[in-house]
Amino acid sequence: MTRVGVWLVGARGSVATTAVVGTAAVRAGLVEQTGLVTGLPEFAELGLPEVADLVFGGHDVVASDPRKRVELLADAGVLPAELGRAVADDVAAAEAEVRDGVEVRDGGGPQRADVERISHDLDDFRSRHGLDTVVVVNVAATEPHREPAPTDASWALLSAALDLPGTPLPASSLYACAALLTGCPFVDFTPSSGARLPALAELAVDRGVAHAGSDGKTGETLVKSVLAAMFVRRALRVRSWSGTNLLGGGDGAALAEPGRAAAKAASKARVLTDVLGHPVDGGVHIHHVADLGQWKTAWDHIGFEGFLGTRMSLQFTWQGCDSALAAPLVLDLARLIAIAPTGGPVPELGFFFKDPVGTGPADLASQFDALVAWARAAAR
Amino acid sequence: MTRVGVWLVGARGSVATTAVVGTAAVRAGLVEQTGLVTGLPEFAELGLPEVADLVFGGHDVVASDPRKRVELLADAGVLPAELGRAVADDVAAAEAEVRDGVEVRDGGGPQRADVERISHDLDDFRSRHGLDTVVVVNVAATEPHREPAPTDASWALLSAALDLPGTPLPASSLYACAALLTGCPFVDFTPSSGARLPALAELAVDRGVAHAGSDGKTGETLVKSVLAAMFVRRALRVRSWSGTNLLGGGDGAALAEPGRAAAKAASKARVLTDVLGHPVDGGVHIHHVADLGQWKTAWDHIGFEGFLGTRMSLQFTWQGCDSALAAPLVLDLARLIAIAPTGGPVPELGFFFKDPVGTGPADLASQFDALVAWARAAAR
Amino acid sequence: MTRVGVWLVGARGSVATTAVVGTAAVRAGLVEQTGLVTGLPEFAELGLPEVADLVFGGHDVVASDPRKRVELLADAGVLPAELGRAVADDVAAAEAEVRDGVEVRDGGGPQRADVERISHDLDDFRSRHGLDTVVVVNVAATEPHREPAPTDASWALLSAALDLPGTPLPASSLYACAALLTGCPFVDFTPSSGARLPALAELAVDRGVAHAGSDGKTGETLVKSVLAAMFVRRALRVRSWSGTNLLGGGDGAALAEPGRAAAKAASKARVLTDVLGHPVDGGVHIHHVADLGQWKTAWDHIGFEGFLGTRMSLQFTWQGCDSALAAPLVLDLARLIAIAPTGGPVPELGFFFKDPVGTGPADLASQFDALVAWARAAAR
Amino acid sequence: MTRVGVWLVGARGSVATTAVVGTAAVRAGLVEQTGLVTGLPEFAELGLPEVADLVFGGHDVVASDPRKRVELLADAGVLPAELGRAVADDVAAAEAEVRDGVEVRDGGGPQRADVERISHDLDDFRSRHGLDTVVVVNVAATEPHREPAPTDASWALLSAALDLPGTPLPASSLYACAALLTGCPFVDFTPSSGARLPALAELAVDRGVAHAGSDGKTGETLVKSVLAAMFVRRALRVRSWSGTNLLGGGDGAALAEPGRAAAKAASKARVLTDVLGHPVDGGVHIHHVADLGQWKTAWDHIGFEGFLGTRMSLQFTWQGCDSALAAPLVLDLARLIAIAPTGGPVPELGFFFKDPVGTGPADLASQFDALVAWARAAAR
Repeated sequence: MTRVGVWLVGARGSVATTAVVGTAAVRAGLVEQTGLVTGLPEFAELGLPEVADLVFGGHDVVASDPRKRVELLADAGVLPAELGRAVADDVAAAEAEVRDGVEVRDGGGPQRADVERISHDLDDFRSRHGLDTVVVVNVAATEPHREPAPTDASWALLSAALDLPGTPLPASSLYACAALLTGCPFVDFTPSSGARLPALAELAVDRGVAHAGSDGKTGETLVKSVLAAMFVRRALRVRSWSGTNLLGGGDGAALAEPGRAAAKAASKARVLTDVLGHPVDGGVHIHHVADLGQWKTAWDHIGFEGFLGTRMSLQFTWQGCDSALAAPLVLDLARLIAIAPTGGPVPELGFFFKDPVGTGPADLASQFDALVAWARAAAR
Repeated sequence: MTRVGVWLVGARGSVATTAVVGTAAVRAGLVEQTGLVTGLPEFAELGLPEVADLVFGGHDVVASDPRKRVELLADAGVLPAELGRAVADDVAAAEAEVRDGVEVRDGGGPQRADVERISHDLDDFRSRHGLDTVVVVNVAATEPHREPAPTDASWALLSAALDLPGTPLPASSLYACAALLTGCPFVDFTPSSGARLPALAELAVDRGVAHAGSDGKTGETLVKSVLAAMFVRRALRVRSWSGTNLLGGGDGAALAEPGRAAAKAASKARVLTDVLGHPVDGGVHIHHVADLGQWKTAWDHIGFEGFLGTRMSLQFTWQGCDSALAAPLVLDLARLIAIAPTGGPVPELGFFFKDPVGTGPADLASQFDALVAWARAAAR
Repeated sequence: MTRVGVWLVGARGSVATTAVVGTAAVRAGLVEQTGLVTGLPEFAELGLPEVADLVFGGHDVVASDPRKRVELLADAGVLPAELGRAVADDVAAAEAEVRDGVEVRDGGGPQRADVERISHDLDDFRSRHGLDTVVVVNVAATEPHREPAPTDASWALLSAALDLPGTPLPASSLYACAALLTGCPFVDFTPSSGARLPALAELAVDRGVAHAGSDGKTGETLVKSVLAAMFVRRALRVRSWSGTNLLGGGDGAALAEPGRAAAKAASKARVLTDVLGHPVDGGVHIHHVADLGQWKTAWDHIGFEGFLGTRMSLQFTWQGCDSALAAPLVLDLARLIAIAPTGGPVPELGFFFKDPVGTGPADLASQFDALVAWARAAAR
Repeated sequence: MTRVGVWLVGARGSVATTAVVGTAAVRAGLVEQTGLVTGLPEFAELGLPEVADLVFGGHDVVASDPRKRVELLADAGVLPAELGRAVADDVAAAEAEVRDGVEVRDGGGPQRADVERISHDLDDFRSRHGLDTVVVVNVAATEPHREPAPTDASWALLSAALDLPGTPLPASSLYACAALLTGCPFVDFTPSSGARLPALAELAVDRGVAHAGSDGKTGETLVKSVLAAMFVRRALRVRSWSGTNLLGGGDGAALAEPGRAAAKAASKARVLTDVLGHPVDGGVHIHHVADLGQWKTAWDHIGFEGFLGTRMSLQFTWQGCDSALAAPLVLDLARLIAIAPTGGPVPELGFFFKDPVGTGPADLASQFDALVAWARAAAR
């Protein structure tokens, strides 16, 4: 029986907390596996690591009372208050495994020490719990936009840069680096670009460690991926696609900063060109509306053309709770990447992402088929 | 080179007129093949009958000036006015091939004569134009609800009933019967139940004639089929799905009659249970709003549940022109069923229908794959 | 200082429970007066009876644990759980004043006894609490449709009918009758027609008791009343207005019965013709979606015409909690009708209703002005 | 009988062309007065200048074939093609009165000459047509954002600046200046700030010429003004209000430039704070979607709070044609300001504007009442 640890970068955020509560609730038989893709019949006989056996730890840069966090999620309607109380011990246990995250400062010293500390935390977690695998999942807030640096190009250059002071790498690069060096599969659930450097892709292949990402596909983009494919299959020509995302606290606040919003919008836009095969008018816009709290409302307007040029339209409004949508996918990804037979990118996990690594189909139905096929092969 | 005739039951309706105008416009190079599924690359090398070579005829029970019909469609925004003028000769040619439709009256005489007259019209059309195949497509207004009759059960009983006066068969049964007896593939694009009798299915197998249906999937149901599959693949639990359809003139007026609306709503509801695998709260409602003319607005509200029971919702509004959406599918169906290698139901054409004959997948992506595979095999 | 009692018909329903909880919360200073129209500055100096001084009692035909009811409302998101716990004593006090409601049975005996029992309950409540006025507010479930009876026409006939067995009056007639006979102002917050008989209007004038109704304007109709007036003031011609109401439990279940839904839909439709001055295409539809619980989602589609006949549209989606919207209006109505200077209908309370008694403006802005003017005059 | 000329700045744009076509269509009895506020019964007996008697001229900086312009509007669905053909002579007559607009260049010479040329064009138009009044209406594209200049402060400073080279005034300032100097009432239908300088307000009062503006309230803001007032009258607390505007060609293209979009968004945002009396979360966003052509789709999401803090929401989608909405208001404004009894700002025309000059009520119902009262007084 494979014992898997899930190491969450951003361990005190809403997604992480919801993942911990949910795992405990599944273990205790208090909830069904709704929202867990790996709970579908297609994955039933594959011998994936059990949800109930997952062990949690992680890094975070802010301290907070875990009971308070769970209460806030309950107040926001993300989970029932009594459920939060029922699994308080599990939440406390996970909190006990949270270590101080790394902070990146312009003009700080060499970052090799940060990477080594992260690696040490991972090794320590693995050995104390006797885990076969520790999957590192980045669920921290989106980082500001970063211009590519020359040292991104190869592991040799990047490794050397870790020993020098100067323009620092973002935290996500350091976590990915430490994970790969320690043999921990790495999953990037955010649109931050720091974990997608060529140097890190090279390292992953070199060390034979699997990695996947980026940017979990939880709401608007999920709907887009199936609707765009519908238009393609019906030979209807999409002319414009305009999306507005109203995001509350947490990620919404981070994305109020234009640079971060641009990273997110770019990630969200990719699915359309990939599925439609041509660019369209319109764009993706992200606005922070603090009052929405944990909730997100997205409105998309699609203008399309039918036979003889007739113009028609489709609109949709998605009202979702991002933490509730993301948390089960984090568990899915941990269960799946833990059994990856080879190192390097796993494009078959593209089903979960807005901006998948590697090449693969862009419409959700094909991605699902690819995922199931991969999981079956990996499980053998 | 296969020469295919398209015989439209309801030949003076909006769908039929749009199909004729559109075919002529494609032939003249005035428009692209937007909305034509068989114009996609997947069907490019299969040697399907060319759109430009299709010849039109049909039956209708009402007379109308074809130029007037085209003008009304242009005023309604279904097609550009100049396009209608450019293909006036083709519209006139199709009109010259329209014959009086059969009228069904309680207490009328035996209906054998009606079937024979339809058969004669089909034979005459085929021979005068030297056609290899004539595909009969029912695009007439939805018929009122009809209770099943004992004679529906077998061709022997139904055939005998055609020689007796008394409770008459609906017109759609007579067209289907005549088509199958004359060796013409039959496509039912409506939710009328008259063409779906066991007796007719038996006849089709017996005579080796292909048939497909029912009820073209052009708008709201199309969107439902992909969104429902999305929820399934993400293990999100749909709790309620409520749909409201505002339909203008034509089919809207016919569906203002509760019996017909019930038939349509039943057909529209099937996709959900098929894809989701369980019934959900809510329902499908159809309302006639004459002022919408050729246009339809559908609003769907979906309540679903995620991880830990969090309730979320998705709404969509579809604003489409049914004729513009249906007409290219009629052409697709004619091109495809014309090459069906065997008689009886063709479930692989389920991609086009709300309520497909036979068994097959219910989500659009799988239906598309099945369609492409079938077409490739049939084309060999 | 006027001491006012509020006697709720349907005292164990969601609206009544929310009104009791809310009053206690206002009294305890736990919440602001959001949603209370009489809390606006326009009503500040009029010396209306204080919310904090309202005393509650009522009738209901079903028994239920008040603590349970409050918990269910908290679970449904109508009110915060801790708020419900904080005012448990007030809820218990109101529960102690709830008496068995009257049940109406075909073939039952004369209903005079029912009226007398209700009157006795009202008198008893008034005297035990030393109240100056007891306002009776009907917030019970909508009654089935009822055909008018000859005895509705005058109080003499109706009064005589109360002494005979046979076709019974609906419960709402009996409550209204008892209230008026006992000198209690009567407010009909429902679309039930039983309290709107000519005989009762005559009685109210005769006894000098004020009454108002019908059918609280809490959501979709509220929005309609302001949007319709907007179109009128801009000379834009509304062509169609189609409304779909998805209602959860409680009233939704009652309205699943077609007769009751028809009563509600008729009440909801009136505002349009009143404000627009002409009938329009489309209609109002009510569907029960149990899964929505205490919540309601309404979608309206408005087709309108501008200069030179250009067709445009407006859609809105209202997602509201009916109890939270209705409860403060019940308090407003009690505070206001308690100071009515004369008996008979109070059309100036039309601001609160879908289908107001008497004559008055139909658009919300004018209704508000009329209400403020009336309250100022009444308060003098 | 007052003869009124309407001088349109931006005379070859869509709004201007639609106004000219519509006036001719009204004159010819081809259309009703839908969309004309001054066509309502409230204005019937006031002896306003007749629509049919309006004479058109104007300035524009681009040349274009008027027949072509009308055809493009017909293709875009703004007006029926046959209507455009029927009034071709009137369109040609208006085109004959269009003069070259002024162009503003950094580093150009003094702008006094521009003002004098505009004044001359206005005088010439007035005298040749024997007009009692010429109303100048700015319907040109929104100008880029402009920082206030010290010379904006008084007419003495501004007048002196007109004789110096250097930082130039925007074109809208020059038109307003020339209009006021020539005694022509000036209406600013755009959000450009150039016509709102203190110096110009001083000039208007000094010369006794009426002026009004700014930024016609045609769509989203119109709906906002009535919905916000509804929330206020019901004591419901608006927490967030987020608006997204998808604009097609013409103004959409101009507003793709961030500076201009900011001016527009500021103008659109004002109504909320004015009506609600407090700022709310969210914002107004404008996006250019060329494919929408003459059409605009706006989606607004409003989060509000009811009794006991219950959170609810309202969304609306407005699909309108800006030219069709704006053109009749231009005619209304010309008819009304032509009878203004005094010079200076006319705040009672605030009914028509997003960002009215002077002080007045902000909700539409009160604005309408104020408008009617003003018109009655002015007409005496």
